[in-house]
Amino acid sequence: MTTTNRVINIGLQIFSDSIRAQGVEVLDVDFRPSPFDAPRLAFTQTGIDIEAANAEAARRIASGKAVLIGLGIARDVIPGMCDKMILHAGPPLTLRQDAQGDAWERMCGPVRGAVMGACLYEGWAQTADEAARLAASGALTFEPCHHHHAVGPMAGVVSPSMPVWIIENAAFQNRAFCTLNEGLGKVLRFGAFAPEVVAKLKWMETVLYPALDQAVRSIVGGIDIKNLIAQALYMGDECHNRNKAGTSLFVRAIAPALARTCADGETLARVIEFMDRNDHFFLNLSMPAAKALTEPAEGIPGSTIVTTMARNGTDFGIRIAGLPGQWFVAPAGMVKGLYFPGFSEADANPDMGDSTITETAGFGGMAMAGAPAIVKFVGGVPQDAIDATLEMYDICASEHDTFLIPALNFRGAPLGIDVRRIVETGIAPRLNTGIAHKEPGIGQVGAGLLRAPIECFVQAFEAMRGT
Amino acid sequence: MTTTNRVINIGLQIFSDSIRAQGVEVLDVDFRPSPFDAPRLAFTQTGIDIEAANAEAARRIASGKAVLIGLGIARDVIPGMCDKMILHAGPPLTLRQDAQGDAWERMCGPVRGAVMGACLYEGWAQTADEAARLAASGALTFEPCHHHHAVGPMAGVVSPSMPVWIIENAAFQNRAFCTLNEGLGKVLRFGAFAPEVVAKLKWMETVLYPALDQAVRSIVGGIDIKNLIAQALYMGDECHNRNKAGTSLFVRAIAPALARTCADGETLARVIEFMDRNDHFFLNLSMPAAKALTEPAEGIPGSTIVTTMARNGTDFGIRIAGLPGQWFVAPAGMVKGLYFPGFSEADANPDMGDSTITETAGFGGMAMAGAPAIVKFVGGVPQDAIDATLEMYDICASEHDTFLIPALNFRGAPLGIDVRRIVETGIAPRLNTGIAHKEPGIGQVGAGLLRAPIECFVQAFEAMRGT
Repeated sequence: MTTTNRVINIGLQIFSDSIRAQGVEVLDVDFRPSPFDAPRLAFTQTGIDIEAANAEAARRIASGKAVLIGLGIARDVIPGMCDKMILHAGPPLTLRQDAQGDAWERMCGPVRGAVMGACLYEGWAQTADEAARLAASGALTFEPCHHHHAVGPMAGVVSPSMPVWIIENAAFQNRAFCTLNEGLGKVLRFGAFAPEVVAKLKWMETVLYPALDQAVRSIVGGIDIKNLIAQALYMGDECHNRNKAGTSLFVRAIAPALARTCADGETLARVIEFMDRNDHFFLNLSMPAAKALTEPAEGIPGSTIVTTMARNGTDFGIRIAGLPGQWFVAPAGMVKGLYFPGFSEADANPDMGDSTITETAGFGGMAMAGAPAIVKFVGGVPQDAIDATLEMYDICASEHDTFLIPALNFRGAPLGIDVRRIVETGIAPRLNTGIAHKEPGIGQVGAGLLRAPIECFVQAFEAMRGT
Repeated sequence: MTTTNRVINIGLQIFSDSIRAQGVEVLDVDFRPSPFDAPRLAFTQTGIDIEAANAEAARRIASGKAVLIGLGIARDVIPGMCDKMILHAGPPLTLRQDAQGDAWERMCGPVRGAVMGACLYEGWAQTADEAARLAASGALTFEPCHHHHAVGPMAGVVSPSMPVWIIENAAFQNRAFCTLNEGLGKVLRFGAFAPEVVAKLKWMETVLYPALDQAVRSIVGGIDIKNLIAQALYMGDECHNRNKAGTSLFVRAIAPALARTCADGETLARVIEFMDRNDHFFLNLSMPAAKALTEPAEGIPGSTIVTTMARNGTDFGIRIAGLPGQWFVAPAGMVKGLYFPGFSEADANPDMGDSTITETAGFGGMAMAGAPAIVKFVGGVPQDAIDATLEMYDICASEHDTFLIPALNFRGAPLGIDVRRIVETGIAPRLNTGIAHKEPGIGQVGAGLLRAPIECFVQAFEAMRGT
């Protein structure tokens, strides 16, 4: 009988090399000690069992419904939406401790561009200069979408006349809102405000919105967006940066109703073409679905689960279930990515948008393994997508019971980002996103990947440790 | 310095076990010697370079176009389609050397059922008994779809009044034809012929067909089906037994044109609903696309590439590029699969249908790795799907340059089944398929997997060796 020595190395590569040279089998474990002082926090100071609180948060997020029940005009349907109010993506602009200046002064170029476009769209200004002066005058109110049960991709700008999708979480009776995706090219969400940008928004308000609203309201029970997300995750989407299957399934779901309710064939054709020509059309449905699904977890005492991750192009902010309403912010990161011809990293604005609500709800970057085609746009291979999802299990409290990943043998997607696990492992959530030009009025210049700034999660952890 | 012995075992597992017990590292290679006497055939007896001929066959299949240009009624558009003629899937029914009886006598239950349904649909008979008597009388002509540039799933029955898709291979100026998919439940292709089956076929002829034909013909350049297949392979389909993405993309592609050409909204709604309610609607487009893509390879002297694999429910038949028009047949296999409640293997008809044209064209079972969801219906895991595709590379001459598999790092799907490689390796093509009840009039009872009977390929190999 032979006795064999086997070694597990959790240290440097050089340790295992020297042992292996002696003919001993070595298993290297990629162990990284946390850079933070973070013993596992099991109970709050008031004795709440954090593990149980987090299980409840994950249960609420996973068990929600997300049904499209109709559309409405922002001023009519978004709670707290007032005249001369403009909503934007991310946390409030004046929160950061070192912040200087008011919201407009701290606003990045593309969000400024989108605000100026909204002023032109609303008729509050006739020229870009007039719009900029109005925005700087203090006459407008800027608030985060997230303070109004809304979300918006990139700049995330919502002004009172814009049509929005209404998503109802039928399990918890809450609603979420999002504008309609404008398509690619020169669009408001990337900071463009040229006349054609505004003209398209007007067409969306006057033609697209009533057609879609009539159709959705004619469908008894609405359209189950959570179900479409689950199906799309079987079809190569992660429903954040790839929405081709979701868009296709949504067209199938709404087209018969559109055919029955649309007054004339030409309008109907243009409405369907508008959806068909934009593989990201579904993003503005998956985002408010994620928002509707995550909100019921807000306010669970002791829970360290992230319920919001959002960027305003200047700052990155998160909120956690146990400390509702409290933002933890840090500077928004720069995206590593590929640029459109003629643009480079020097043109790039920092990370921007509310679309990270998808990761918060257990899909998007969490489900990258199911969307290998995405890695192509940053020069990666499908194994990178699988590795990204596998890593995210390390910082999540649970696995989704409905959002499944075929490539991982139908394992549930990582669900419930736990700030405790982030500070324990030093692993920050992965994000993939579009890149806007840093100047107002230009638009998208590329797309790429980055990680959320870990400082936000450390702040939230410290705040929870104090409760 | 240490000397290490390492062993590669190409024999039985027991060899490596005993070596491994002595502390020696062993790599097991799953090597199976071919069961056939098959030295690599490099040249025909007349000196044709088979490798070069096969490369040309693969090039023609990969470089074809497959564009949907319209629809037509079978008798008007299928070459050689005559009155009282019925086309069926697979090889001719009377080809097998041990065949006894005429086509009707050799016909399996579900093809008989579909023929009886076609007689009722055409008004040639008023009752099932009358239809059976007519079919047995010799008054009908039975020919394979494949003899008329057509293909049909399962029974594959085409009668003169049925509408068919017209696919044009714009690169080679050939056309292929296929009926429209009837949906699930009681349908002709699985041998059902009840009044509701025939009524649905009549609705398809009088409402669905003109609506789709008008729409397709209004689209300049038609609809590029090859492109939709390539996209669907990124979206979890293999476009044989999973067609959910293909169906979704097709609805997107045709819906705007339908909106412009359809006379009334209710008809339009029903046409879209008919497509939406059947995730296999696209199968009857991917099949004739495959047929249009493979036909240009027929007649390349010396090529051992398979251009047809098809089953009539009694026999399995193949044809190869170098011996056009010549069938090599063997008994159709039994499918290992899952059965609907109330049915078992005792109810199953042997393997049936022309849908294996998809594997012949470099997708379907060849691209299983891209459709992990399929393995669920036979209780497998996604790795089985990947393994299935990897194995198929061993029997194919080439890799597709357009049909790519994300899960295999965007590698091209195996293309060009080479009968030489099949006899060298003993590996027969894998098939996945629906299962029909063996009696006429009942329909689908399950779905499952099997391999093509290797005898067909051995016969074709021997025939080519003699040329």
